[in-house]
Amino acid sequence: MKVIAVEPGAGQPQVVERPIPEPGSGEALIRTLRVGVDGTDHEVIAGAHGGVPEGQDRIILGHEAVGVVEDPNGTDLEEGTLVVPTVRRPPNGPNRYFKAGEPDMAPDGEYYECGIVGADGFMAEYFTASPEYLVTLPQELAPLGILVEPLSVSEKAIQHAFASRSAFDWRPESALVLGNGSLGLLTLAMFQEVLGYDRTYCLGRRDRPDPTLDIIDGLGATYIDSRKTPMDEIPTEYEGMDIIYEATGYAKHAFETIEALAPNGVGALLGVPDDWEFELNGGQLHREFVLHNKALVGSVNSNRDHFASAVDTLSQLPTWFTDDLITNVSTIDDLEAAFDTDDTTIKTAVEFSRI
Amino acid sequence: MKVIAVEPGAGQPQVVERPIPEPGSGEALIRTLRVGVDGTDHEVIAGAHGGVPEGQDRIILGHEAVGVVEDPNGTDLEEGTLVVPTVRRPPNGPNRYFKAGEPDMAPDGEYYECGIVGADGFMAEYFTASPEYLVTLPQELAPLGILVEPLSVSEKAIQHAFASRSAFDWRPESALVLGNGSLGLLTLAMFQEVLGYDRTYCLGRRDRPDPTLDIIDGLGATYIDSRKTPMDEIPTEYEGMDIIYEATGYAKHAFETIEALAPNGVGALLGVPDDWEFELNGGQLHREFVLHNKALVGSVNSNRDHFASAVDTLSQLPTWFTDDLITNVSTIDDLEAAFDTDDTTIKTAVEFSRI
Repeated sequence: MKVIAVEPGAGQPQVVERPIPEPGSGEALIRTLRVGVDGTDHEVIAGAHGGVPEGQDRIILGHEAVGVVEDPNGTDLEEGTLVVPTVRRPPNGPNRYFKAGEPDMAPDGEYYECGIVGADGFMAEYFTASPEYLVTLPQELAPLGILVEPLSVSEKAIQHAFASRSAFDWRPESALVLGNGSLGLLTLAMFQEVLGYDRTYCLGRRDRPDPTLDIIDGLGATYIDSRKTPMDEIPTEYEGMDIIYEATGYAKHAFETIEALAPNGVGALLGVPDDWEFELNGGQLHREFVLHNKALVGSVNSNRDHFASAVDTLSQLPTWFTDDLITNVSTIDDLEAAFDTDDTTIKTAVEFSRI
Repeated sequence: MKVIAVEPGAGQPQVVERPIPEPGSGEALIRTLRVGVDGTDHEVIAGAHGGVPEGQDRIILGHEAVGVVEDPNGTDLEEGTLVVPTVRRPPNGPNRYFKAGEPDMAPDGEYYECGIVGADGFMAEYFTASPEYLVTLPQELAPLGILVEPLSVSEKAIQHAFASRSAFDWRPESALVLGNGSLGLLTLAMFQEVLGYDRTYCLGRRDRPDPTLDIIDGLGATYIDSRKTPMDEIPTEYEGMDIIYEATGYAKHAFETIEALAPNGVGALLGVPDDWEFELNGGQLHREFVLHNKALVGSVNSNRDHFASAVDTLSQLPTWFTDDLITNVSTIDDLEAAFDTDDTTIKTAVEFSRI
């Protein structure tokens, strides 16, 4: 079968031949339909994040997959069922995090991430997985199945952010998403269309006309240009935000979030920046944290429950939104556009098998 | 009656005469037994925090009081009942935070704090309060009643910290308190004696012999000297901490907390520092936040439920601990020792009426 593999830091992803995998006991064989591409894939390609499986010099890319059950192989899955795989796998048999259904909370060394670190991904014509790592979804969502994994990451982050505000009567009305990439836009749509926020905002630094700004407008959200309105001016220029979702990886944003929050607000951090030393008014930020009961919550990955919530969220997003969000679906023979990062590209995918 | 009042920033607290207050409708008259002194009082005295009631040039100090009901005045309180007053009052009739029983979550302008900002405190022979601002406690706790308010602040901070970890199966075992002042020691005792942590630590920068270090030893906790072990070395020198409670007001600690936490850990911030610009590796801290699911929660003040929890906690603290913690109880005629801040002073109080 054909797979898309990369030697991290040493070149572009390439199509290579591998044997179709044999499902082990308790595993089903899945035929891949599509696999999405995101910023983490680009970091893996560049060698900036993750690592190849032990004993290999390449890693099969891809962690945002949708496929169909080709061979249930004795599991209780049915042939033809549409599935999305979760991303983390235990390195040495199930540890306590996997047993609790919370691999997303496992610390370093207690997980592999398919297509990212230690285990091959799903950019292959077939892959195998045990049912505990598969979430089913309705047939009509097949073309959008690549969005389940990124949405699940936001489901988790928002769940944890809400948990941090669960000790009091919190009544959030305003939400700000930092970053107008595909994850930012998906989360903005969640806040606006599914969570029913009165006022939603999205921070970016692009000029119109721009397809991501058109989506922000289409959702009825307010675009905030960070070149014109720095984070600390957001409360006076717009309003203090009850919840801020950071998907930029821009480290100053993580800290400036404290100032842009309304009293009792929470910031969910998702970016994974490189080292960066900078100066800030730590006294002011610390004081602001305390006197206004603010919180910051870091969040990585997601578990099966978050995937299931994401399927539900996905079914509630408007068709125009997902149509505009997915800007390219490439075939395996014409990969280049799938890995483009220009300003007309929002979300791309590679198709392995026709839907 | 005698009260202890101060003109913030203009001198030391002084005993002055005021009329005994008339309880309004629905208010009881309380005879004050003792009022504790803490860092906030010193900030009010210095004019660094809080503000006098409108139309006054002085504020009556004190927000850590214990008293007895002198005149129930038609309320359902009984004469002679031991009570501790909560600290916040609504400026213009009850707003939504007070109605929800959560004045601690009210933003600026929606609360006064007795003895701190906008309203007189409890360092007076008598004060008045409606029963909704009073928590009862057993007679035998009278000498320790001054500890209910500070403990309630920790009850809230720890409740909010735990809430932030409630979306997953969190199993904390190690707790670190930053600061060996009276609030730090009280919270250390909570972690050790009431919450049953396996391993507790307290960070300070004092040499032995020192009465606070003796208390840390007595509790079975480990003293960490920050001059020898910077925060970022704590995970390698000791262990990553599941929960960190910051009671230093030292702003670098707020951010260094991220590095000293174990994966999935949470830091509760309580200090109120001045402005302070400094450099940090924001990229590393941001990355650490995200990849290890860490959280920081700011917390200020406390509500009636936290006061009730604090009474329960107080009844579980060992006698030797509270004996050693309260280093001085002054009479109103000999105030100086109550406001001392030398290294032999831990917790002090002023006695207004014999217990």
